[in-house]
Amino acid sequence: MKGALLRLLALCLAGLVGCEKIAIIGSGSWGTSIAYKMGKLHPGAEIEMWTFEEVVDGRNLTDIINEEHTNPKYLPNVTLSHNVVASSDLQSVCRDASLLVFVVPHQFLQATLRKMVGFAPREALGVSLTKGLCLHAQGGGGGAGESQDAPPAPLELLSDMIRRELSLHSQVAVLMGANVAKDVSEDHFVEATVACPDARVARAVSRYFHSPSFQTRCSADVFTAEVCGALKNVVAMGAGFCDGLGLGSSTKAAVIRKGLCEMSLFCKLLSPPGGGYDPATVLESCGLGDVIATSFGGRNRLCAAEFARTVGSGAGAADKAALWTAVESRLLHGQKLQGLSTCAEAMVCLRERRLEGRFSLLRRIHEIAIGSASPASLVEDWDAQEEE
Amino acid sequence: MKGALLRLLALCLAGLVGCEKIAIIGSGSWGTSIAYKMGKLHPGAEIEMWTFEEVVDGRNLTDIINEEHTNPKYLPNVTLSHNVVASSDLQSVCRDASLLVFVVPHQFLQATLRKMVGFAPREALGVSLTKGLCLHAQGGGGGAGESQDAPPAPLELLSDMIRRELSLHSQVAVLMGANVAKDVSEDHFVEATVACPDARVARAVSRYFHSPSFQTRCSADVFTAEVCGALKNVVAMGAGFCDGLGLGSSTKAAVIRKGLCEMSLFCKLLSPPGGGYDPATVLESCGLGDVIATSFGGRNRLCAAEFARTVGSGAGAADKAALWTAVESRLLHGQKLQGLSTCAEAMVCLRERRLEGRFSLLRRIHEIAIGSASPASLVEDWDAQEEE
Repeated sequence: MKGALLRLLALCLAGLVGCEKIAIIGSGSWGTSIAYKMGKLHPGAEIEMWTFEEVVDGRNLTDIINEEHTNPKYLPNVTLSHNVVASSDLQSVCRDASLLVFVVPHQFLQATLRKMVGFAPREALGVSLTKGLCLHAQGGGGGAGESQDAPPAPLELLSDMIRRELSLHSQVAVLMGANVAKDVSEDHFVEATVACPDARVARAVSRYFHSPSFQTRCSADVFTAEVCGALKNVVAMGAGFCDGLGLGSSTKAAVIRKGLCEMSLFCKLLSPPGGGYDPATVLESCGLGDVIATSFGGRNRLCAAEFARTVGSGAGAADKAALWTAVESRLLHGQKLQGLSTCAEAMVCLRERRLEGRFSLLRRIHEIAIGSASPASLVEDWDAQEEE
Repeated sequence: MKGALLRLLALCLAGLVGCEKIAIIGSGSWGTSIAYKMGKLHPGAEIEMWTFEEVVDGRNLTDIINEEHTNPKYLPNVTLSHNVVASSDLQSVCRDASLLVFVVPHQFLQATLRKMVGFAPREALGVSLTKGLCLHAQGGGGGAGESQDAPPAPLELLSDMIRRELSLHSQVAVLMGANVAKDVSEDHFVEATVACPDARVARAVSRYFHSPSFQTRCSADVFTAEVCGALKNVVAMGAGFCDGLGLGSSTKAAVIRKGLCEMSLFCKLLSPPGGGYDPATVLESCGLGDVIATSFGGRNRLCAAEFARTVGSGAGAADKAALWTAVESRLLHGQKLQGLSTCAEAMVCLRERRLEGRFSLLRRIHEIAIGSASPASLVEDWDAQEEE
C-alpha cells in the first residue's frame, strides 16, 4: 500500500515536470536488461517495454512483469524499477515516445517495424541494439543468388531500415559493445559504442545511457559498429567450437584474433563510399570489446561449444540444422541464436561479391555450422589465405 | 639399451649430414616447451638447452631432463625428444650454435649474456622469446629519476641488447604471440609473430618454428612486437583483478580492450623514428592474440586474481610487495611473475616522458599493484582520460 502510494506520488511529480516516454521494443534478456538500466537512470521517465505476449506458469508475461517487476522467463532475479511497464500493445508502446530503443531479434525486426508505421513519432530519436545483417533480395535472387549476372543483394544496415520504414526525421543510431545482458543487469561495469553519422544524434542518444557503470563512447562509423555487432556472433561460434573441442586458450585467442581481422576487412571492403569507415572503430567496444566478451560469455559461444561436442562424439542429428535447433532450444530457453543466420547471410554477401576467398575463417565456421566440414578443421589450412 | 643404440645411430647420421646445433637459453616452462617443439621439428639437430642447475627430489635437474627426457619442475608430463639435451654449462651450450633462442626471464638476461660473450658465435641467428622492458639508467637517475632536468632513461629492446652484448653480425628477431607454454607442449594450434627489421632474418628464424600447429607470421615492426609482448603481462594483471573481484565478462573485455589500446599508444609514442612502427601490428598474434590468451590463461592473470581476492578479503600483508612475493611463490612453483616489474618499468618510462596522463589504465593497474589504490578502483574514473 505504501509502495503504491509512493509510486503514485512519483508519477504525479513526473507528470508535473513533463514525463518523458522511452519505448523499448523487445523484452528478451537484453531488452529487459536495458529496461532495468533505463528505469534506474531515468526514474522520472515512463519506460514502456513492448513484450511479445506469452503464458508463463499460467499467467501472461506482461502481467507478471507489471505486478512482480521481474521477467522470470528472460531475466530472472532482477528487479525492474516501477516506472518500467510491459505491454503487448506495440502501437501504444511507441506512441508519444521521444526515444525508440530497438532490441528485437533481427529476424523479427522488419515485421515489427511495419506494425509501428503511423504510430511511432517521426520526430523521435531511434537507437538499434539489434544485431544482424539485412540482405535485400533483388529480382529472383532470393538473397542466395548464385547467378553470374545478378547484382549482389544490397546490404542495408538495420539502423537504416528502421529510419526508412518509420520515416523518422533523424538518422538512427546504434548502441553496440561488450555488454552482456547478465553483466548489465548486475550493474557490472560495461562499455558501449554509440554510433551514428549524425554526431548530434549520437551524443543525444549516448546521454540516455551513459553512467559510471555504463560508459558510452560516440562514433560516426555506424557501418563498422553495426556490422561488427552482427559478425562478432559468428566469430564467437568459432570460439565456441574451440571450447567444445577442448582446445587451449592460445588456440581460442588465435581464432578470435583472426576473426576480428576478418570483421575489420569485411567493413573495409563493404562499407559504402563516404560512409565514414574508420579502421580504428574495430578497437572500440563494438569490435574488440564485444568479440572478447561474446567469445567468453555469450550464448553463441555456448551453443557452438555444445554443437562441437555433440558432433565430435558422433551423436546428434545428421541434419545439422536440426542439431542447431535442438541445441538452441536446450540451452537458450526461448532466446534466439543470432550467429547462425548471420553466418549464412555474411556468406551470401561475400559470395555474391566474390570475396569469400579472403575470409577463410568465416567461411570455415560456416562450413562447420552446415556440416560440410568437421569442427576439428577449424584451424586447418590456417595460412591458406592471409587476412589481407 | 635399444633406445640408446637408436639414439647413437641418429647422432651418427646427424654427424654425417652435418648436424646443426640450436641453443635454447633458459629452461622454464616456456623454454622447455620450445625445446619440445624444436626437438620434434628438427629431429636431426642437436638441441642444447641451458638449464640453471637446481636439485629436484635429490637429483640435479639437468640429470633428470637428460635421463628421463622430461622437466618435472617446470613442464611435467611432457616428453622431450632425445635430441634435446640439458646442460648447466652456458658457454658450451652456445658454442657452435647456428640459432640462439633466448627464453630466460628478463631480469636475468643481461647477466646471462655477459657470460656468453666470446662463446656465442657472432654469425649465429638470434631470436628473443623473453618478455620485458629494459630501461638504461642515466647519470644518477637509477631509472626512477624524478628530476625535472634528467633526460629520460633510454628504452632498449631486449633483442637489441642481445645483439649489442654478443656483437652478433645480424639483427636479432623476436618471437612473440599467443602461445602459452602448456598449449604449445600439448601440440594445440598456436600462432606467433616473428619480427625483425631485417626481413631476411625474420624469414630465416620463422622457418625454424613454423609448422601446421605453430603458425608464424613475419613483421618488420620489432618494437611493437616486443613491447606488446612485455606490456600484455600488465594488461593481464588488470584482467586478473577482474577475475579476483568476480566481475563479469563484459568488464574484463573492457579492461582488455582499453589495455590493448594503451599498448598500441605506447608503441606509437615511444617507437624510435624510422623504427618501422605500423599500427596494424597490434592486430597480430603478438598484440591482440597474446593479450587475449594471457588474460584468460596466463600466470600474471592467475597471480593478480589471487592478489585482488586477498586484498579484497582484508587478508594478506599490508606490504604489497611482500604479498606479491607470497602469491608468486604459492602459485608459480618457482616461475617468475613478469608483469609486476614490467608494470613498474613502464610507469618509469612514461613518467619520465610526462606521458602517464594518457595511460590511465596502466597507471591504475600500477597503483593497485603497489597498494596505493584498491582493486575495485580498476574501473573507476574510466573516462577521465580518453585513449587518444
